[in-house]
Amino acid sequence: MTQEFLEFVSIQLIKNSKISLYVQLYDHLRELIISGKLSYGYLLPPVRKLAVFLAVNPGTVVNAYKLLEQNGYIFSRAGSGSYVAEILVNGDTEYQPAAVIEIEPLPPVTVHPGKNCLDFATVMPPPDLLPIDDFKNLLIEVLDRDQGKAFSYQDSQGFEPLRQAISTYLKEQGIKAQANNVQIISGAQQGIDIVAKAVLNYGDYVFTENPTYPGAIAAFRSRGAKIVEINMESDGINIQELEAKIRSFRPKLIYVMANIQNPTGYSYSLGKRNRLIGLARRYNVLILEDDYISELDVSDAPLAPLKALDRDQRVIYLKSFSKIFMPGLRLAFLLMPPSMVAKVLASKHNSDISTSGLTQRAFDLYLRKGIWQRHIAAIRRIYLERYQTTLAAIEQFLPPAVTCHRPRGGLTCWLALPEGVSAQQVVEAAQQQGVLLTPGTAFFPRHAPDRFIRLSFAVVCSEEILQGVRILGEIISQYCLRNIGK
Amino acid sequence: MTQEFLEFVSIQLIKNSKISLYVQLYDHLRELIISGKLSYGYLLPPVRKLAVFLAVNPGTVVNAYKLLEQNGYIFSRAGSGSYVAEILVNGDTEYQPAAVIEIEPLPPVTVHPGKNCLDFATVMPPPDLLPIDDFKNLLIEVLDRDQGKAFSYQDSQGFEPLRQAISTYLKEQGIKAQANNVQIISGAQQGIDIVAKAVLNYGDYVFTENPTYPGAIAAFRSRGAKIVEINMESDGINIQELEAKIRSFRPKLIYVMANIQNPTGYSYSLGKRNRLIGLARRYNVLILEDDYISELDVSDAPLAPLKALDRDQRVIYLKSFSKIFMPGLRLAFLLMPPSMVAKVLASKHNSDISTSGLTQRAFDLYLRKGIWQRHIAAIRRIYLERYQTTLAAIEQFLPPAVTCHRPRGGLTCWLALPEGVSAQQVVEAAQQQGVLLTPGTAFFPRHAPDRFIRLSFAVVCSEEILQGVRILGEIISQYCLRNIGK
Repeated sequence: MTQEFLEFVSIQLIKNSKISLYVQLYDHLRELIISGKLSYGYLLPPVRKLAVFLAVNPGTVVNAYKLLEQNGYIFSRAGSGSYVAEILVNGDTEYQPAAVIEIEPLPPVTVHPGKNCLDFATVMPPPDLLPIDDFKNLLIEVLDRDQGKAFSYQDSQGFEPLRQAISTYLKEQGIKAQANNVQIISGAQQGIDIVAKAVLNYGDYVFTENPTYPGAIAAFRSRGAKIVEINMESDGINIQELEAKIRSFRPKLIYVMANIQNPTGYSYSLGKRNRLIGLARRYNVLILEDDYISELDVSDAPLAPLKALDRDQRVIYLKSFSKIFMPGLRLAFLLMPPSMVAKVLASKHNSDISTSGLTQRAFDLYLRKGIWQRHIAAIRRIYLERYQTTLAAIEQFLPPAVTCHRPRGGLTCWLALPEGVSAQQVVEAAQQQGVLLTPGTAFFPRHAPDRFIRLSFAVVCSEEILQGVRILGEIISQYCLRNIGK
Repeated sequence: MTQEFLEFVSIQLIKNSKISLYVQLYDHLRELIISGKLSYGYLLPPVRKLAVFLAVNPGTVVNAYKLLEQNGYIFSRAGSGSYVAEILVNGDTEYQPAAVIEIEPLPPVTVHPGKNCLDFATVMPPPDLLPIDDFKNLLIEVLDRDQGKAFSYQDSQGFEPLRQAISTYLKEQGIKAQANNVQIISGAQQGIDIVAKAVLNYGDYVFTENPTYPGAIAAFRSRGAKIVEINMESDGINIQELEAKIRSFRPKLIYVMANIQNPTGYSYSLGKRNRLIGLARRYNVLILEDDYISELDVSDAPLAPLKALDRDQRVIYLKSFSKIFMPGLRLAFLLMPPSMVAKVLASKHNSDISTSGLTQRAFDLYLRKGIWQRHIAAIRRIYLERYQTTLAAIEQFLPPAVTCHRPRGGLTCWLALPEGVSAQQVVEAAQQQGVLLTPGTAFFPRHAPDRFIRLSFAVVCSEEILQGVRILGEIISQYCLRNIGK
């Protein structure tokens, strides 16, 4: 045996296993790397030599190397070979990337509630809460005022008066903003996609919370980026895990929802906000803050967005006006560090040139005339009642073994079922009784645990909430009993 | 000298040259590959060995290899090294990729015409040609009819009645279409971006016409795809060149405008249409047909789109309603091979969830009531006059040495200046006299010749056309005279 293969003596491949040879080899090599036996910068042997040594087909080695590369354990240099990458220094054994990171986009999740259903799955406001008449009048006002200009190409960065109105609105929320740094976009999803294009290249690392919004996972995967997830806790992301993984993977971007996170409803403590921003500065990472729903913070002391603490321009702030307003309108904005303005503008231009000028002009008036602010106040009153009813119903009807963190507001609750009860089974059983819920699995980039349910009270009235949660409670209790019976 | 470096003896690098060492090395290696001295599958020497042999820094070799890889001359395999790729078999010496393919997005091109300018740069219709009142009434009709639904989330594939109306409209144009295969999108640029996401992965090859629409170049580059351009001729793409390059590069996608191409105004002959589709079938390539402006084909026998010939589902058909209708509206559609529907839908969903439901609903009525068809007829009459005036003015005022192919219609003419006259200089001189034009350089992915000008008659009346072309003729004549004087 030659000297150079000493490190690989431990590798024993089982030829008749159900696990294919290249996955076995991948696992062995991964373990050598994680354990530090092959350390950062180690040059792996050429494919053919290793294949001969292991008595396997060269294709087996090629595939194992490919998987290692996809998962960030090794990298290759043209003309030079494959090297071991920089891996977690503090041996975070909890983190084990799945063998295959899917590059394919996720299929869109669409729910088609039946007529007699109790719908706890939908998170957008029902059509009857939308301010149709107000908006119709503004559309007419804009068309009478601007005529053909309302249908001409809009600047790619967005209608300037609207950008001004947004920066004024942001100042009222405690966020310093200039119209120059505002980019108008067609909804929050486009914001994530456009920032991904501007910041991430193929193979770059991006961090997300775990669980997180599936649309973000899809956009990052479509970009060919590698997603590393950081666990969420009830007071925000796990900071120790974050720092360890930043050191190992050197991500370009961290995607967070600091206020009333989707799906958990968790909000970051002030301490974690400051530490997150500190880490971003220290390791030169950008943060994409998706301000999902902070207007519906109904607590006594609502929290400002993370962006309000961003003193040295690390945070790209993403805010949708359409989400709780008029989902079909597709209108949102980004507030950016000045260094990102040109890149994001080019990325917007490549994506769809510009956002509808008519929508921008009408919404500009909506904001300037204070109708938006009045609409939010009205919506808050309605959702405060549903929020309180939901929490009371959970307290009353769900078995005590179900955990539910009390969110600061929003449209959803995040239920953790007792050990041994399958969320998927509960959701299916509930659906058969006409209660629609979202299983938590969709929100995890990988290794989804089957014990969470997201319960939305966006389109159900108080009576329906009581009825639906009672049914859910009965179902969960039955599963708990069966569990004990086992 | 060792045996293995015999092939590299001819490489002589000049250390004090203005051309950096790695570019010199790139050029030498490229020549060895093109000339066949290093043939397909040849394993290049490891970086360090070649660096020692050439007495250069290893970084120089790494950078040269990177460039070769970016331009498709070599490819690397993890753990195995770099190999010479399959290159043009018939020695097409005309094709020489630039040393650097920029992955950075192009900056958006925006023209801000002054008040007293003669604007031959803008290609969108002036605000006073837009059907404001018709559309305003339809918006009101939709809001009264659909109320909040008009502002709710729209299906990601698009409003079903609109997709029906579009398929009916297409059948009238000779294109077989089913609503199931129609995807609504927010403008043509988004169509290119979404198809790129659905079809192209990082490093894949995509072909474009040369010259072509810069927004397509930007979208493909942003995707990390490698662009190979195929020269346009007055009867369509060069088919020999296309086939040779398909064999060498095995592209995933070919982006074409078969009718009244942007920027040249060229239209494909029937023969070239059939051969293009035949090649796509034979080599298993998809075609993205951007039907830029076929409604404005004012010839005696208007041509149907390429899609009308697509018998075995090779063509993704892209059509914007907003371009010559209401640019700020952002509305277009894709008609897809059934195999692409799910992928494109996921790609749309990842990009911006859906296109504005209000716009879709209003445009649905616009199409169903036949107002679109009437609007097109009115626009055609106006542009037919401007088209004829422009061609007559070119005949009358431009020196005979300027070549202008007679397009079948559209909004632009493509002028080829005489040898030795710089289009850039002519455009600048014209601008100083208040005549705005677009230099042709923006439309070439690389190696842009400085001899083309795109002249648009979208926003100028007949009188302005005569005045502007006269001024342009004088400027070009002066440059021609200077040329003779040299």
